[in-house]
Amino acid sequence: MMSETTISADNPVVTLINVFTVEPSRQQQLVELWQRATDEVLRHLPGFVSANVHRSFDGTKVVNYAQWQTREAFQAMLANPDARPWLEQLAEVGAPAPVLCEVVSTHHASG
Amino acid sequence: MMSETTISADNPVVTLINVFTVEPSRQQQLVELWQRATDEVLRHLPGFVSANVHRSFDGTKVVNYAQWQTREAFQAMLANPDARPWLEQLAEVGAPAPVLCEVVSTHHASG
Repeated sequence: MMSETTISADNPVVTLINVFTVEPSRQQQLVELWQRATDEVLRHLPGFVSANVHRSFDGTKVVNYAQWQTREAFQAMLANPDARPWLEQLAEVGAPAPVLCEVVSTHHASG
Repeated sequence: MMSETTISADNPVVTLINVFTVEPSRQQQLVELWQRATDEVLRHLPGFVSANVHRSFDGTKVVNYAQWQTREAFQAMLANPDARPWLEQLAEVGAPAPVLCEVVSTHHASG
């Protein structure tokens, strides 16, 4: 199984950057909920490319950087009856702030 | 020059996910400002790994997904006299919401 995600302006994907605000005492719970939702349901859906779960050092945020093949596939996931209970549970533990976007450019260290 | 960025829980990097809220009429200006700040200054600083500029489809956000080798390198950039004018200019065009975090796990499509 591929263990790396790539970000590239040439990738034909749409990106969902979802910043959840959470009580620090529940940050780990939210991380594990994202991991289970992804492994049990989301990554088996049509058009899923990747999910990448991040935790903030200050404890107050969990960020999911997710990639889907198309906007339509992402929208279909939102309405999927297997996905919806997970999405509702996630939103009970943290407050989501989703941004649906595309990569414009990537920049790397010189020399 | 490498044209792809890699997300992996094994990467020894810290990640700054910075979601800027912007007037849609100024989204493109903010994208270009990020690109210039990165190419002219940020990517030449010690500890810089990558910057990845995203624009939201709804026009109201620009997201920079950036990687630094260490938290210390990221903090040093914030105080760098060459970087500060760029950071101030960025914050005049959009409202930043930075999250300093680490990758917990990556997940990919099944089969």
